[in-house]
Amino acid sequence: MARTILASPNKEVIMGFDQPFCIIGERLNPTNRKSFMAELRAGDFSRVERDCIAQVEAGAHMLDVNAGVPLADEPKLLAQCIELVQSLCDLPICIDSSIIDALEAGLAVYKGRPLVNSVTGEDESLERVLPLVKKYDAAVVAISNDETGISVDPEVRFAVAKKIVERAQDHGIKPEDVVVDPLVMPIGAMGTAGRQAFEIVYKLRKELGVNTTCGASNVSFGLPNRHALNAHFLAMASACGMTSAIMNPLHEEEMAGIKAADVLNGNDPDCMRWIMKYREPVEGGEDGGAGGRRGGRRRRSAA
Amino acid sequence: MARTILASPNKEVIMGFDQPFCIIGERLNPTNRKSFMAELRAGDFSRVERDCIAQVEAGAHMLDVNAGVPLADEPKLLAQCIELVQSLCDLPICIDSSIIDALEAGLAVYKGRPLVNSVTGEDESLERVLPLVKKYDAAVVAISNDETGISVDPEVRFAVAKKIVERAQDHGIKPEDVVVDPLVMPIGAMGTAGRQAFEIVYKLRKELGVNTTCGASNVSFGLPNRHALNAHFLAMASACGMTSAIMNPLHEEEMAGIKAADVLNGNDPDCMRWIMKYREPVEGGEDGGAGGRRGGRRRRSAA
Repeated sequence: MARTILASPNKEVIMGFDQPFCIIGERLNPTNRKSFMAELRAGDFSRVERDCIAQVEAGAHMLDVNAGVPLADEPKLLAQCIELVQSLCDLPICIDSSIIDALEAGLAVYKGRPLVNSVTGEDESLERVLPLVKKYDAAVVAISNDETGISVDPEVRFAVAKKIVERAQDHGIKPEDVVVDPLVMPIGAMGTAGRQAFEIVYKLRKELGVNTTCGASNVSFGLPNRHALNAHFLAMASACGMTSAIMNPLHEEEMAGIKAADVLNGNDPDCMRWIMKYREPVEGGEDGGAGGRRGGRRRRSAA
Repeated sequence: MARTILASPNKEVIMGFDQPFCIIGERLNPTNRKSFMAELRAGDFSRVERDCIAQVEAGAHMLDVNAGVPLADEPKLLAQCIELVQSLCDLPICIDSSIIDALEAGLAVYKGRPLVNSVTGEDESLERVLPLVKKYDAAVVAISNDETGISVDPEVRFAVAKKIVERAQDHGIKPEDVVVDPLVMPIGAMGTAGRQAFEIVYKLRKELGVNTTCGASNVSFGLPNRHALNAHFLAMASACGMTSAIMNPLHEEEMAGIKAADVLNGNDPDCMRWIMKYREPVEGGEDGGAGGRRGGRRRRSAA
């Protein structure tokens, strides 16, 4: 069974079928956020600081960091963001860019063992990203598309993922250090998107034994009550073998879905994390006096 | 792919992998409900009427009917309850008793094609219940325990289920008319209970192609925030192939989990049921005037 180990200087996170679902905070990413882009372009990193701290407090296990700002020096900006985040918290980082020079700049400054986001099945990507992953002893997210685009056939997406895992091995990267993103489509546009994702993830687990991740919110694009759909998608995918997601840890509903999934997948020993999070207060318990009731705190929404 | 067809005189319900998850209302059951038992013993059926209507309105697809009242004439009582429920609504019924004479009394009065709850892998149960199921052309819930009890080994539980399906075939009952209950244990007592259930259900689907059901709330016994656990358990189990559950349709959280699972399993065409349930009101829409806002109704909790 694959165990992907990610680390900062002081903290190790293990991704695996027998581990709690790995929550990779998505908020340090200016894509589609105009004011965040403008701030970064102007050298204002205050939102990075705030979003970093907020995600740590919300229970993220790792943080994705992306600095994709058009017309900016992305390699320099990404390196600055990574150094800032590493000065603020000890969560391992997922270094996220579509620009390979930016990935390298991020890898050069990162302290620990990061996750590189991402390599695709395209030859140029494979030939440029995998040597970097090997050079810096990192793990890598493998996105299952190639030169022909994203196939709607789950067998093709599985085959692309398999090709990436094999190419990684040619570069000396173990399968356990390849985390496959099977590409989850919006279910509002493609009714089979969920079932396809579950089947690919199941197959990736059974046949390749690799860890998997996804952008969790994409599945509910365009639909109402997205948080409930995302939460149940994450739980369902985890039952089929998905072991992590790049997601917003500030959303309570998705986080509850993942905590429930950890319990139900047997990855919350003695259900202790669930019980600590959701237990009812004891009336007149240790914090209460003889009168009792004032001491009873509602703990359901406590951290 | 198994399609289990249940019917009342006016309504057909199909259980299957390509169908909405089948919600079997559990409320018409006096087990562990002292006042309900006392009422039934005294010939007061008012709670049956109320719970029947409430479950229909909440969206149940079928209703489980049990009349297990100690010291009462259970066959007669069960037949009375079934006739009452059939006079009140047109949902197909799951005839529920551990007393075989009561099952027969219920089958004798039922109009349509019911689900018989249940047969076990015990020889006496097989030899007495299966002929009844065949005689009345019903479908049957198969509980995967036998003379040795409930095995904690999922392979043994699968083997018991397989034996029941084979014995049913010997009696002329098709596998599609056997709905297996893999017996879900409380996760608070056995941390592997969820994963075991998912694996058995997956195997039952892949290898036997049968529909499955469970008592949904058992998994969360003894834990806080049970509704969230139950909801995610149902969604996760459905992703692995579970197609129905005996559950309380009055619990909004579990119902949302099932509706989300239907979307994500591709069994809510064009997500229309989800959209109708959860769409946001249009401000100043068709019900509003020029001023608009007063006409905007919140529809999130509408039926």
